[in-house]
Amino acid sequence: MTVQSKAAARPDTVTTGPIAGSHKIYTSPPGRADIRVPFREIALDSAAREEPFRAYDTSGIYTDPGAAIDLSAGLPPVRREWLARRGFARIDARAVKPEDNGNLGGDKLVPECPAEHRVYGGKPGQPVTQLEFARAGIITDEMVYVAHRENLGRQQAAEGAAERLADGESFGAALPEFVTPEFVRQEVARGRAIIPANINHPELEPVIIGRNFLVKINANIGNSAVTSGAAEEVEKLVWAIRWGSDTVMDLSTGRNIHNIRGWILRNSPVPIGTVPIYQALEKVDGDPAKLDWEVFKDTLIEQAEQGVDYFTIHAGVRLAYVPLTARRVTGIVSRGGSIMARWCLSHHKESFLYERFDEICDIMRKYDVSFSLGDGLRPGSNADANDAAQFAELETLGELTRIGWDKGCQVMIEGPGHVPMHKIKVNMDKQLRECGEAPFYTLGPLTTDIAPGYDHITSGIGAAMIGWFGTAMLCYVTPKEHLGLPNRDDVKVGVITYRIAAHAADLAKGHPLAKLRDDAVSRARFEFRWEDQFNLGLDPDTAREFHDETLPKEAHKVAHFCSMCGPKFCSMKITQDLRVEAERMAGLEAKSREFKAGGEQLYVPEAAAE
Amino acid sequence: MTVQSKAAARPDTVTTGPIAGSHKIYTSPPGRADIRVPFREIALDSAAREEPFRAYDTSGIYTDPGAAIDLSAGLPPVRREWLARRGFARIDARAVKPEDNGNLGGDKLVPECPAEHRVYGGKPGQPVTQLEFARAGIITDEMVYVAHRENLGRQQAAEGAAERLADGESFGAALPEFVTPEFVRQEVARGRAIIPANINHPELEPVIIGRNFLVKINANIGNSAVTSGAAEEVEKLVWAIRWGSDTVMDLSTGRNIHNIRGWILRNSPVPIGTVPIYQALEKVDGDPAKLDWEVFKDTLIEQAEQGVDYFTIHAGVRLAYVPLTARRVTGIVSRGGSIMARWCLSHHKESFLYERFDEICDIMRKYDVSFSLGDGLRPGSNADANDAAQFAELETLGELTRIGWDKGCQVMIEGPGHVPMHKIKVNMDKQLRECGEAPFYTLGPLTTDIAPGYDHITSGIGAAMIGWFGTAMLCYVTPKEHLGLPNRDDVKVGVITYRIAAHAADLAKGHPLAKLRDDAVSRARFEFRWEDQFNLGLDPDTAREFHDETLPKEAHKVAHFCSMCGPKFCSMKITQDLRVEAERMAGLEAKSREFKAGGEQLYVPEAAAE
Repeated sequence: MTVQSKAAARPDTVTTGPIAGSHKIYTSPPGRADIRVPFREIALDSAAREEPFRAYDTSGIYTDPGAAIDLSAGLPPVRREWLARRGFARIDARAVKPEDNGNLGGDKLVPECPAEHRVYGGKPGQPVTQLEFARAGIITDEMVYVAHRENLGRQQAAEGAAERLADGESFGAALPEFVTPEFVRQEVARGRAIIPANINHPELEPVIIGRNFLVKINANIGNSAVTSGAAEEVEKLVWAIRWGSDTVMDLSTGRNIHNIRGWILRNSPVPIGTVPIYQALEKVDGDPAKLDWEVFKDTLIEQAEQGVDYFTIHAGVRLAYVPLTARRVTGIVSRGGSIMARWCLSHHKESFLYERFDEICDIMRKYDVSFSLGDGLRPGSNADANDAAQFAELETLGELTRIGWDKGCQVMIEGPGHVPMHKIKVNMDKQLRECGEAPFYTLGPLTTDIAPGYDHITSGIGAAMIGWFGTAMLCYVTPKEHLGLPNRDDVKVGVITYRIAAHAADLAKGHPLAKLRDDAVSRARFEFRWEDQFNLGLDPDTAREFHDETLPKEAHKVAHFCSMCGPKFCSMKITQDLRVEAERMAGLEAKSREFKAGGEQLYVPEAAAE
Repeated sequence: MTVQSKAAARPDTVTTGPIAGSHKIYTSPPGRADIRVPFREIALDSAAREEPFRAYDTSGIYTDPGAAIDLSAGLPPVRREWLARRGFARIDARAVKPEDNGNLGGDKLVPECPAEHRVYGGKPGQPVTQLEFARAGIITDEMVYVAHRENLGRQQAAEGAAERLADGESFGAALPEFVTPEFVRQEVARGRAIIPANINHPELEPVIIGRNFLVKINANIGNSAVTSGAAEEVEKLVWAIRWGSDTVMDLSTGRNIHNIRGWILRNSPVPIGTVPIYQALEKVDGDPAKLDWEVFKDTLIEQAEQGVDYFTIHAGVRLAYVPLTARRVTGIVSRGGSIMARWCLSHHKESFLYERFDEICDIMRKYDVSFSLGDGLRPGSNADANDAAQFAELETLGELTRIGWDKGCQVMIEGPGHVPMHKIKVNMDKQLRECGEAPFYTLGPLTTDIAPGYDHITSGIGAAMIGWFGTAMLCYVTPKEHLGLPNRDDVKVGVITYRIAAHAADLAKGHPLAKLRDDAVSRARFEFRWEDQFNLGLDPDTAREFHDETLPKEAHKVAHFCSMCGPKFCSMKITQDLRVEAERMAGLEAKSREFKAGGEQLYVPEAAAE
């Protein structure tokens, strides 16, 4: 692992090397040797007759020791040939303007990422977006890729080699036993899933977001008032995906954001989302009243041509809804929402995002930038959850979803925020109803407001629940939420917490094989395979470090007990002995029946017992 | 705050002093000036017209700067006079035996806590337990105390001074608007709540555990293989209750446990629970087969006379159920469960705990030790959740609950463990049904097994949910679970995580005033009262520290923005300006109506909008 570079301008070094106990592998979908889908293979104790465990991998080539990392050259463009076959038009890129970088010059200006970047646009009348291809009955390479990626572990199940491992309650989701490219196409065609994949982001390893697929998570990065140049931002990206972030949003608001975004995009294997209104506001000196359609439109094109995969657009913040927030405890807490509310009030006019929504769609369609329809009126406290303002906006997002779909755009919907547990399902159900099952993408939600410093946990609870109920992607919250900017450790804790929430949701939904990893950990735990337990976990380094704190000796890594109870009291040890004993006593089951009249029903299998 | 003493024998120093931004107060129930119930009052910015906020307080006199702390003398016996009025018999205490402390002598033996301790027992035919008093129609002082304690903030509501602040879904719980001593008596009488309060623990500040009261949490302490003398254990107790643990279990398994337990009890204002089979096993050199009724009975009496408030008794692990665990992924993971399973198999006999349950009840009734019926067959992995073994035991716990009640004993029921989200409610519902609504006391449950090092979070999710569904007390899990012994930081993180879970549950259940604190934090947040936000949180020190990391200057504590967005982008700031603007524009609401046909319905209050 190389040390994080602190250089302000060019990112020279980022965190590389495999995650402890694992290595990167690539496999190809049937008949498509040209497509290489990355996975992470965790080596397990072969004496225990455990096969290596294969995990979903978001980390890009940064965890591949064989890969040459050159941030100036950018990542290998895995989608280039796929895109080339579609015959998009090479277009003259919009020229970079001084205001794109906050009018900086000289050595204050972060240099542009020198990686080659040709800009393409879709041709009128021909399909551009994944949605358009899907509707035309065409299975794209991206669909083949994500089908293979989502099928992790399911091949055996489909071939009947494994029993169905999971039960679950999916609340109307329809998780298939096996994900075919055709299933992906159908889900994309009906708007129930999106593959955010700008045609100008050839470096992308495609990912699908929808409630019939694995629950995804997003991490936010971005410079701010104080902060950080390109080096720091690219390292944040690499660090977030290392621990499992499926997409990353660049929420930068300072200067240099055009050029920093370039470094991020050319080096990102995951979809990058942005909130274009932030940069538009920078261009008008931070005064929301000065915003207009022209500066916003120009920003959309600027970012779309760079390759941003999804845009948060707060077009649901309508003038009529602003007064609904006046009696709230915490008003409007979405930055984009408050900017647009301010604009509407200043001009006493309907939002230009709402009025120009058709034109926004046309721009986003041209590059296949997906919509993330922003919830600018989301509650900023439990007190404001599910109120009239929030739900009025959600209804408008439903209306906009249908317009976006009509225009050929992929659409997902952003959701709260701060919601007590008993109001979470109401949110999910209303979103599915209003927005025609377009993927829901929620922030948390935080289930209580009384724990600043621990909002990864207050929100992890809500995230697991709403993920179970049907949310397709969970936006992480770090321990620093409401207090400060997350550092490296905070980002990691946030990502791991949300991987927990997403996985707990997959398990509860009845994902066919979500349980595989839990069971592998559990077997390792029961058999005192300490190294396997660490390496199968979401964070092997922390697990190992915690174990070392109490029992540092190497010998303890193979000890048949742990520090909690010591050797004499170890219940796992006792049970293992007991199992051996029980096996010896062949007549035991018969004997136990004597002890309990009607004991027969005790021997029914677990499923029937519930 | 004094530094934690590392002395092996006598605990001389523990953490004292108030939690940042608050001070201890005492108030009395109406007409009972002799009863002083502690609360923690958080000072808020008076310029903001905020009253000081009053919080539930578990921390004992350790956070009272006026109190003299002398661990050798023990805490003031707040219950002594109440108990004296009941006319219990002073009895000759069982003499301490060498095996009680693992046959240690000389300077290896931790000295006995010199605090005065007279031992009492109930008289036959006269009420002893809170359950017996409740059934006899008698409201005890403990009931008056807990009613006042639970009523925190409700007095105003009952007097009509405040509107009902919360909605919620309580799944059949019946949370009263106002908690009267008579309500407490009724809940205790029907077994739906317990007040664990050994008549030999006069230092106790009583607490009630039941699903119609605030959700409680427990922290485990205890020495083990390596560890720690009395000083460290008492400090662990003080530290856990400082951050909000309502009860503490002493799970010590090493030597010196009798004397360490004495130090803990004489210095504990919260109920102390133990698992007597651990000490009994110590007395027979760690060989479960050597356990018998006599050694167990002797241990029960030993610990009951010291003042332990509740005992975990694994009487539901019946011989017939042991084979049901044979095909499990993780067998039996409860220490007590595996010990008893081992005993049953070794002797091919029914568990003596089950067969002697009547006699156990008689002993526990005599001192009013509450039952915590252990779930010895709880699942140790998601794979084993809700299986035949677990549910067979739960049915037996229901049978034992009724026997305990018949004998006059207070009873709660322990629950899992490791359970995926979709199986949590099944657990809760079955427990309520099988055990006649006796309080449920669950460990987590962990909702996935793939995150060793983060099991406070995997379990915090499950804890919040099962607390919402009806669990009365949540046993914490620390980040070190499955890996090692928790240190001071781990204990704090575990306690805070479980306070979050308990509070999120109270909110969702519709506790009449749970929302008060959330709203106070939210107002502070919206108004940039940083100090108030920190101090109203569960952990002011961490919140302040996180804020300082990004914006260390004192001036920033009153800044009308934070480091996340900076002054220009601050959405809260924008909304505040916007609110002022909106108020100026009197005609705004009318104008907004023009923009939306049928806009009228946007102005309905939140409740009707859902």
